[in-house]
Amino acid sequence: MSVDFHGIIPYLVSPIDKSTGNVKTETLTKLVKDLLAKGVHGLSPLGSTGEVHYLTSNQKSEIVRTVIEAAEGKVPVIPGVTAYTPTEAIEQINNYEKLGADGVVIILETYFTLSKKEIQDFFKTVARSVSCQIVLYNNPKFSSVDLTPEIILKLAQEPNINYFKDATGNTGRLLSIINQAGNQIKIFSASAHIPLFVMQLGGVGWMAGPACIFPEQSVYLYNLASLGRWEEALEAQKQLWSANEIFQKYNLASCIKTGLEIQGYDVGDPIPPLKPLDKDAIDVIRNILNRASL
Amino acid sequence: MSVDFHGIIPYLVSPIDKSTGNVKTETLTKLVKDLLAKGVHGLSPLGSTGEVHYLTSNQKSEIVRTVIEAAEGKVPVIPGVTAYTPTEAIEQINNYEKLGADGVVIILETYFTLSKKEIQDFFKTVARSVSCQIVLYNNPKFSSVDLTPEIILKLAQEPNINYFKDATGNTGRLLSIINQAGNQIKIFSASAHIPLFVMQLGGVGWMAGPACIFPEQSVYLYNLASLGRWEEALEAQKQLWSANEIFQKYNLASCIKTGLEIQGYDVGDPIPPLKPLDKDAIDVIRNILNRASL
Amino acid sequence: MSVDFHGIIPYLVSPIDKSTGNVKTETLTKLVKDLLAKGVHGLSPLGSTGEVHYLTSNQKSEIVRTVIEAAEGKVPVIPGVTAYTPTEAIEQINNYEKLGADGVVIILETYFTLSKKEIQDFFKTVARSVSCQIVLYNNPKFSSVDLTPEIILKLAQEPNINYFKDATGNTGRLLSIINQAGNQIKIFSASAHIPLFVMQLGGVGWMAGPACIFPEQSVYLYNLASLGRWEEALEAQKQLWSANEIFQKYNLASCIKTGLEIQGYDVGDPIPPLKPLDKDAIDVIRNILNRASL
Amino acid sequence: MSVDFHGIIPYLVSPIDKSTGNVKTETLTKLVKDLLAKGVHGLSPLGSTGEVHYLTSNQKSEIVRTVIEAAEGKVPVIPGVTAYTPTEAIEQINNYEKLGADGVVIILETYFTLSKKEIQDFFKTVARSVSCQIVLYNNPKFSSVDLTPEIILKLAQEPNINYFKDATGNTGRLLSIINQAGNQIKIFSASAHIPLFVMQLGGVGWMAGPACIFPEQSVYLYNLASLGRWEEALEAQKQLWSANEIFQKYNLASCIKTGLEIQGYDVGDPIPPLKPLDKDAIDVIRNILNRASL
Repeated sequence: MSVDFHGIIPYLVSPIDKSTGNVKTETLTKLVKDLLAKGVHGLSPLGSTGEVHYLTSNQKSEIVRTVIEAAEGKVPVIPGVTAYTPTEAIEQINNYEKLGADGVVIILETYFTLSKKEIQDFFKTVARSVSCQIVLYNNPKFSSVDLTPEIILKLAQEPNINYFKDATGNTGRLLSIINQAGNQIKIFSASAHIPLFVMQLGGVGWMAGPACIFPEQSVYLYNLASLGRWEEALEAQKQLWSANEIFQKYNLASCIKTGLEIQGYDVGDPIPPLKPLDKDAIDVIRNILNRASL
Repeated sequence: MSVDFHGIIPYLVSPIDKSTGNVKTETLTKLVKDLLAKGVHGLSPLGSTGEVHYLTSNQKSEIVRTVIEAAEGKVPVIPGVTAYTPTEAIEQINNYEKLGADGVVIILETYFTLSKKEIQDFFKTVARSVSCQIVLYNNPKFSSVDLTPEIILKLAQEPNINYFKDATGNTGRLLSIINQAGNQIKIFSASAHIPLFVMQLGGVGWMAGPACIFPEQSVYLYNLASLGRWEEALEAQKQLWSANEIFQKYNLASCIKTGLEIQGYDVGDPIPPLKPLDKDAIDVIRNILNRASL
Repeated sequence: MSVDFHGIIPYLVSPIDKSTGNVKTETLTKLVKDLLAKGVHGLSPLGSTGEVHYLTSNQKSEIVRTVIEAAEGKVPVIPGVTAYTPTEAIEQINNYEKLGADGVVIILETYFTLSKKEIQDFFKTVARSVSCQIVLYNNPKFSSVDLTPEIILKLAQEPNINYFKDATGNTGRLLSIINQAGNQIKIFSASAHIPLFVMQLGGVGWMAGPACIFPEQSVYLYNLASLGRWEEALEAQKQLWSANEIFQKYNLASCIKTGLEIQGYDVGDPIPPLKPLDKDAIDVIRNILNRASL
Repeated sequence: MSVDFHGIIPYLVSPIDKSTGNVKTETLTKLVKDLLAKGVHGLSPLGSTGEVHYLTSNQKSEIVRTVIEAAEGKVPVIPGVTAYTPTEAIEQINNYEKLGADGVVIILETYFTLSKKEIQDFFKTVARSVSCQIVLYNNPKFSSVDLTPEIILKLAQEPNINYFKDATGNTGRLLSIINQAGNQIKIFSASAHIPLFVMQLGGVGWMAGPACIFPEQSVYLYNLASLGRWEEALEAQKQLWSANEIFQKYNLASCIKTGLEIQGYDVGDPIPPLKPLDKDAIDVIRNILNRASL
């Protein structure tokens, strides 16, 4: 494993010009540079926060290109890939590898229920067809595919499958995986878990939308956890959570775009058919940002 | 409404050459011509039976082109369209219109939960940007979008939204819609309903995968229902259902491909990561075909 | 099978005096006599419409006693039984048998997931310990137990298990059972199905809460169906459904109690913690009753 | 609040003589005395581990009486109460109070969906009609009632509602409640959470079935957590979890009864219709016990 992924890795929003459909590359570049200045350890465009399902191929390429250029190699860039077929996944990954991506987070989509063997073969085929690191992503509520501990352990045997990101919110499940998988696979927390607890269990970091808006607080929490200063970390976590939970109340992508707009980034509206949040929700988010900045 | 959609409209499978990824156009052409000879009233490529989620853009275009050519204008061709954004839907529909499609069945996909307004605006935007007929499709179990009677009634006011296909299996729900919507929208049954009952309620036909394999029996059932010969129709329905229910046991696309292979069509395997059915399932399907042909 | 269950069998509400907890036996007697005068073919106290889960043992006995006395043997009385254990079910049934019940509708409750064998053994043990007819009841959404066609066929071999009532709303599922079970078991429709269609499939009747309020219309529908006058029956069904669907909008027991109050029966409020419907809901129900009586 | 509930509070099994239905009071007394000797801080009979839904009133009374006598006032005894109505709950609680119970864990059951107000009024009515402490229990997966943070905060205003036990497994949700409720309510972890993390968040203990079988390990974990020795506690938690997770694989009550049988307690089989575990499951549990005792 050549590149090491760890720490706070914000999911980036996708700023799109409403009239032209073009990526707002300046806004995105500014956001990336600011996040780097605040100490984040990696960048993940094209996640659900990045409205990946709502983008065209060209928009996706342009976003990855922009983020990689802005990052200047300082931290790994790990775009999201959503695909129903290995062919589709490999095509996207090849493209992102050429643009300079260090790894990808793969979300396997499905219409028909897949067997364990079908799921495993999908990931094996993809992993063996590309060179970059693969982060497995489990979100059974949304993607109808459940990466069980058994499947993860099998897939961890592939040389370039070394990371797993879990969005179930069931932290006990992560402990089960860690008890079985040990060091074979490194675990990232997604937004639904309490990231501090995942780190206590041995997790390597937090990949999450809210880290776009609270990069300093997230990095601070990560540093405390890395130093084993659990009680201070818990205080930091409690404060960060009260923000995080509000971001679970509404459509996550719209929340993060709204929060960034309030912070002065011209990221624009969510992509249609998604509509902007209403005034009440915007006020709620503004209040959280105000409180958090005290 | 220039074209009238009604009757038995089989969802077509997508025969793909495993090594090249090319559409097996000869097989598809033969299937279409045989279905027409057996009296079907329309053709719907790119549905879930057509593994639409698992195809590339090129494969989708080639399939629509092939079906339209083979149909020679004898019956309407109504491809499926799956999309997260209006932009994506309109692009596909424009393409299929140019190829000669008479209408489309639209499946609105979503990652984030959509509000009523977001759902309605999606369909309105799409309907007003294209000329062909639009068949609304409701399958809340799979697509996370639920087209309620209220939404359907609103959308039925668009001049080119005149059809609704329901896959919930809850026939009482269809009666609720019919009681409210009256003649404003024409209803097709999907596979999960008992099509005869939907026709009794005033439904105009059956769009379904199993009709690919049992075209004559399906047309016979439709004709009896059209003539109001309800008791004979019920007998026909009971026989057809015993086949239909088995096709719900396994992945529908794989079932129909297997059935067609047994009937001598070289449609090939399902598209990876989907795997072919195992020997036991194939035997079950062979038995049904044998019994049905007596 | 000594007694034959068929036709319209209303689920009765449980009128309870709020201050004393006593059964309002006069109201219940009047309701039963009026329903009989309007031609219903059986009576089922202690169903979900009867708030069976919210009653004490004494209230349940008193209700069954009252209904049996009021029925004067003119139609079968079939109380509901909900139980977690065979012991509990048998105790209730023995009691109702002594009071003169002709059969019972059994709802198997469970906290832990039961295996097929555990479900079957429950019903076998109960059936062999009592003399009366047993109506199997399937409502997987509420009771976490799913009586599959396979289980039903096994249980139909018991001499006193001859009836099955299904509340799934999935009419195709009933056709599957009928195709497999043939005459081995007689099927009743519950509220969620379109009862006419279940009768077309060979079902023997409708056990439902709304029949308490629309007894004449329900009997009329049943008679048309019995005579095979399908088109008139369909019209009657459409009218009855528009009422039925509203009764699915709110808590069914509260709806039926409200409807009966409007019709002049002093059935009282739902049992706490259930609260009476609000004014808007009461107005909706009053409108339906007004329309239905035209 | 006169009595303080905290620490390891095992859910007790309900040992019933299969032929007579009598409570095996000697076995239960021995189990209680042994658990006390191993340092548990309270005892909770009649939980789901205690198969509360499957017991008669007499069995429930006898179990509570036996546990209270065996406990000799050394630790609080907190029986479970399941009820659909306030009346039913109050009757049980009055009975247990007379027998000497220090508090109860209430599971509100429902058939119809309850409004916030109906839920709140249920608990208020019950709390104001009894003197003992009430532990709110949230298990929306099983009981169809969801005690949201908002409801909990309201109920915490009652003088004798001071505890909340959560079984969702979503630890982030607990952090949300703690952030809002602060010291107004004390939180117990149920089996699905990682109890250590709930204690880190300020939780006061663990009420769980597995503590019946691993009382020493559970008390050891609790003590480490109380001392803030988080890293040692984490190691203890990891070991205990690997046992705990197996106990989630099968019906929990059967698992704990099987484990206790292996440990030499003659607790007998689960209550019909529940069947004993099969040989494979028993071997799995025996292996865990062997490993845990090293």
